[in-house]
Amino acid sequence: MALIVQKYGGTSVADIERIRSVAERVIRAKREGHDVVVVLSARAGDTDRLIQLGREMSPNPDPRELDMLVSTGEQITIALFCMAVKDRGYDAISMTGYQAGILTDDHYGNARISSINTEAIMNHLKRGRIVAVAGFQGVDPEGNITTLGRGGSDTTAVAIAAAIKADRCEIYTDVDGVYTTDPSIYKKARKLKKISYEEMLEMASLGAKVLHFRSVEFGMKYGVPIYVASSFKDVPGTLVTKEDEDMERVVVSGVTYTKNVARVTINDVPDVPGMAAAIFRPLADAGINVDMIIQGSSGIPGRASISFTVPEDKYNETIEIVQSISNKIGAGKVHGDNQISKVSIVGLGMRSHCGVAEKMFSALAAQNINIQMISTSEIKISCVIDSKYTELAVRVLHDAFELDKDPNGVFQVKEEILPKEVVR
Amino acid sequence: MALIVQKYGGTSVADIERIRSVAERVIRAKREGHDVVVVLSARAGDTDRLIQLGREMSPNPDPRELDMLVSTGEQITIALFCMAVKDRGYDAISMTGYQAGILTDDHYGNARISSINTEAIMNHLKRGRIVAVAGFQGVDPEGNITTLGRGGSDTTAVAIAAAIKADRCEIYTDVDGVYTTDPSIYKKARKLKKISYEEMLEMASLGAKVLHFRSVEFGMKYGVPIYVASSFKDVPGTLVTKEDEDMERVVVSGVTYTKNVARVTINDVPDVPGMAAAIFRPLADAGINVDMIIQGSSGIPGRASISFTVPEDKYNETIEIVQSISNKIGAGKVHGDNQISKVSIVGLGMRSHCGVAEKMFSALAAQNINIQMISTSEIKISCVIDSKYTELAVRVLHDAFELDKDPNGVFQVKEEILPKEVVR
Repeated sequence: MALIVQKYGGTSVADIERIRSVAERVIRAKREGHDVVVVLSARAGDTDRLIQLGREMSPNPDPRELDMLVSTGEQITIALFCMAVKDRGYDAISMTGYQAGILTDDHYGNARISSINTEAIMNHLKRGRIVAVAGFQGVDPEGNITTLGRGGSDTTAVAIAAAIKADRCEIYTDVDGVYTTDPSIYKKARKLKKISYEEMLEMASLGAKVLHFRSVEFGMKYGVPIYVASSFKDVPGTLVTKEDEDMERVVVSGVTYTKNVARVTINDVPDVPGMAAAIFRPLADAGINVDMIIQGSSGIPGRASISFTVPEDKYNETIEIVQSISNKIGAGKVHGDNQISKVSIVGLGMRSHCGVAEKMFSALAAQNINIQMISTSEIKISCVIDSKYTELAVRVLHDAFELDKDPNGVFQVKEEILPKEVVR
Repeated sequence: MALIVQKYGGTSVADIERIRSVAERVIRAKREGHDVVVVLSARAGDTDRLIQLGREMSPNPDPRELDMLVSTGEQITIALFCMAVKDRGYDAISMTGYQAGILTDDHYGNARISSINTEAIMNHLKRGRIVAVAGFQGVDPEGNITTLGRGGSDTTAVAIAAAIKADRCEIYTDVDGVYTTDPSIYKKARKLKKISYEEMLEMASLGAKVLHFRSVEFGMKYGVPIYVASSFKDVPGTLVTKEDEDMERVVVSGVTYTKNVARVTINDVPDVPGMAAAIFRPLADAGINVDMIIQGSSGIPGRASISFTVPEDKYNETIEIVQSISNKIGAGKVHGDNQISKVSIVGLGMRSHCGVAEKMFSALAAQNINIQMISTSEIKISCVIDSKYTELAVRVLHDAFELDKDPNGVFQVKEEILPKEVVR
């Protein structure tokens, strides 16, 4: 008898039949004696269609009105879902973001949840109802409808789980868990049974599109165990939770990659204070997101070389801006490469294990893959390489750290005991 | 400088281009110095599509959830409308029924407005904004979303006009006003410049589908002048307002008709108290709406004959129910006719003019049209006739009361002075 939040994404509620399947899954949890809050996304494609409609009306739609428009997508699925549940003899009630007490700031299109008034949700749960909440939306302090940005329904689910002190938050989606790497690139990829919030954050930000970044942050901040599994198959998923003893035995948990990256280098930069700010402020003003930054010696005394990465679609704009800065500050040639990728290894165990970086570099070198840039954090090492080697690098690193092998017998959790395990 | 509520129906906001036209019309009123609240329906077809979606999910969709689903239609149009207005450099804000303070009872699908908290609307107006309110919807005292039933956006508009003490409520629709009869039946039909609430109520309930019945009731109750005009053409419409001196000069204002009516007659009913109740209660229980009821002598002492009309699609069911009642109460044969129509003349002047009924009957008799039933009110006379004579009867009555002629020079209002005239 637990209090559970379940979230189903757009492909899981794409049509009438799938919404019926979701209703049946939720009812199963209810019949098992759990109290269930369900968070639903809009039907797959609906959000895009609504945004497209807004763009047809205006080249630059008013952000408040776009949220008013787009938020109808989730309202449709929660209503249809509750009809399906009631048809099966169970009580259910749908709630818009406003009705569910989800308060956000007023950053239309990308709002952050500031608080949740759980009174209404708890009242309905007490009366034995399945509560269906519209994901991705809330209201600002003035009562205007806001949306949380792409992937926001994950955040809605985890935030509600935190607010109502749910035993766990289950995210059902079109992938069945978190893998050691992208299974479409390497068939030896292994599904992880557990992963820490910290590792998941690095995975999420590095390109493993399983869970929305903010939802993991929320889970970590409030200690909500997040269980990610398939909404189509009945197979065990991955539990994202706080670091525990089992996890420490693993050095590297996964290999991730990001394509569509570009590198820009400025040579011969005067090595005086304020140079970095002079280069990066205009890029920030232009809304260009700079990722890795490396400053090194250029070989000439008093002169430095600065390299950084940007999204590939900003490459030309970046080159243009940086060239004009270089002229102003008296730096040298600006050059770059828009055919690169970033490959990373992530793992809590790195903190206490030596030689991890060396092993990564050797594995790449053995395949003659040249490393153009290196960046490290406590639990992550990223290398920029020629993009044509991306898949090869992922496979080589996966093998080098033996990620296809389950590193720990303790991890051999049987399917039927999974729910208990995630109860705090 | 007036305070105006404008309502645009589904065909007026059917697509992006039409919503843009509506935005331009509203901006014109704003530029003329008026404060404007706009009430919008869902795009033509959207409400039906949403109801259909609900029916695909459930043969009998939960009414609360159906309202949650259907109310998204208006939310889409108000958002798109405000985008269009803002693109043209004017400030606008959309409001759902809840945000606009529209409180209703909890009769999902057919709710009635109980009160409107105008604070938010007035605040936005004070800041110079065009306020766009979702028609057809509100919230019940528990905060659940409700809808007002078909045509409810008219009611939303008139109710808001009453609540904010607007100078007038303008209903823009796909017909350009109220005519003396259906122009598609008789090309001599003349558009009325003014009509009283009372006459409009009779017209609305008798089948002239220009204004929703409840909206006229609301206008009458709170003294809101309602101006009905085309949203596509710039031609003068019809003002629905309280009775004034001009109107008294007209005896008959219009001829209306209802097809798809059926008559049922029970002969030889024991003429004792309680018989009418015994017949009509089972019909009410079956949800069959009985319109005209006439009880007459059957020629046999102590025995009566009862005739009444029902919608044609309830004819077979009615015959079946009434036959079983007849058997129970010892009445005679049940028979009827499902090929009949109701033709009516409506006019305030009937109260003070004699011979109106006689003139109607004579006009029909002159064409050999047999009158099967007659029913009268203070300002209306209805006759049931064979449905094949419907169009002929309408034309004959229109001619008999010379409705094609403007009865009063005072009614010759020029287009440009219309707005002034309707300001109280």
